[in-house]
Amino acid sequence: MTKVTAQMSVSLDGFYTGPRDAREPKDMSGWMQGPEAPGFFRVTRWVVDAMAWRERQGFAGGERTINSQILEETFAAAGAYVMGRRMFDAGEAPWGEEPPFNAPVFVVTHRSREVLERRGGTSFTFVTEGVERAIELARAAARGKDVAVAGGGELLRQVLSAGLLDELELHIAPVLLGDGQRLFDPSLGLGTDDGIELVPTRVVEAPEVTHVRYAVSGRSKLVLDDRGASGELVGPAQPGT
Amino acid sequence: MTKVTAQMSVSLDGFYTGPRDAREPKDMSGWMQGPEAPGFFRVTRWVVDAMAWRERQGFAGGERTINSQILEETFAAAGAYVMGRRMFDAGEAPWGEEPPFNAPVFVVTHRSREVLERRGGTSFTFVTEGVERAIELARAAARGKDVAVAGGGELLRQVLSAGLLDELELHIAPVLLGDGQRLFDPSLGLGTDDGIELVPTRVVEAPEVTHVRYAVSGRSKLVLDDRGASGELVGPAQPGT
Repeated sequence: MTKVTAQMSVSLDGFYTGPRDAREPKDMSGWMQGPEAPGFFRVTRWVVDAMAWRERQGFAGGERTINSQILEETFAAAGAYVMGRRMFDAGEAPWGEEPPFNAPVFVVTHRSREVLERRGGTSFTFVTEGVERAIELARAAARGKDVAVAGGGELLRQVLSAGLLDELELHIAPVLLGDGQRLFDPSLGLGTDDGIELVPTRVVEAPEVTHVRYAVSGRSKLVLDDRGASGELVGPAQPGT
Repeated sequence: MTKVTAQMSVSLDGFYTGPRDAREPKDMSGWMQGPEAPGFFRVTRWVVDAMAWRERQGFAGGERTINSQILEETFAAAGAYVMGRRMFDAGEAPWGEEPPFNAPVFVVTHRSREVLERRGGTSFTFVTEGVERAIELARAAARGKDVAVAGGGELLRQVLSAGLLDELELHIAPVLLGDGQRLFDPSLGLGTDDGIELVPTRVVEAPEVTHVRYAVSGRSKLVLDDRGASGELVGPAQPGT
């Protein structure tokens, strides 16, 4: 059955890239010199390493690393993608004639545009009726496979916040960046006594990165529940606080 | 050999408690009604559950949960604690005559005060010469065991930022809070091309919480290194971004 999934590489402090570049550079060399690039390269280093390993092997099989297995699994599971406008704009030129999606991609945007057909099975359809409609279209196009939220962070938060995400996988790189663009921020729109509950379903410990996968249970009230513990257990005395 | 360690319970989006209470309530019932409590209770629920389990067993041994084992291990490893002033102020009254540390605690503060001796081996020594000095005193008092940073988040960031932390363990509760007090924030003082590198040393997958332990390698430059990958592998096209 089709699930709506998302996966992102983040630093241990929750950033998926460096701080936003106020210049909004239009080309890759501008972006490379901006503040986003160093953090981005660091959190996705495991991907590049796994891809480089695949390249070296000529995709010929043999021993696979945990990380390359997880990448292959991720590519194979997605039958269609949903993408934010900013990510599309940044990617359109560098992805070129054969983008790495090999599946229909639905871009959430305010500007309508003709469908863009690319080689290798990738197409970009521009959806102006909002994120829910984009997911509906992607679901129909996914042929029973999953709908993957390609990014960026803002779209992922919208999907989560609207209760549309079924599964979230984070690839946590063992680094603290201190500042940058956060995957999760107050735009999730949760009150102080609301949370979005998840259930851990898989943890894979690799040398360069920790992969944690969750099923999203949904929005839930946070309760002041000390589970019947005595007074001393309540409050800032607890370990882990 | 004595290590300087820290462990904190955090939500998947990196909060260790709800948003700071602007009222700064002076008693526990005020705190319980404020914005910090719901998030705090949620991220530390695994601790209360593990403690409650211990209580029910009368500490008599038998089968232990992974979570209660991790708590016991944490208590056993610490020979002395370092603590922030705000955490001490919040805890002093509720901890009462027998605080749960059972070891010397060194409180980093600007206000000098006599040593406070409590039952069960806990003492509070107030250190006005800064965090480095507090760790030095704790190290001497730890008798070969570890020095644990008890919290709060601000002190932990200071210790990390000063390069004084050897080991960090996060207990990640499977919940998104959206807002609250972050364990890691820009006060770490890292530039856009600096990171603090860590090495994952242990991941324990428990039903209620994921325990991830890291050795802290230290501050390091982030490099724009695509590992020799081809053009298409560079930029926002990568999975996990």
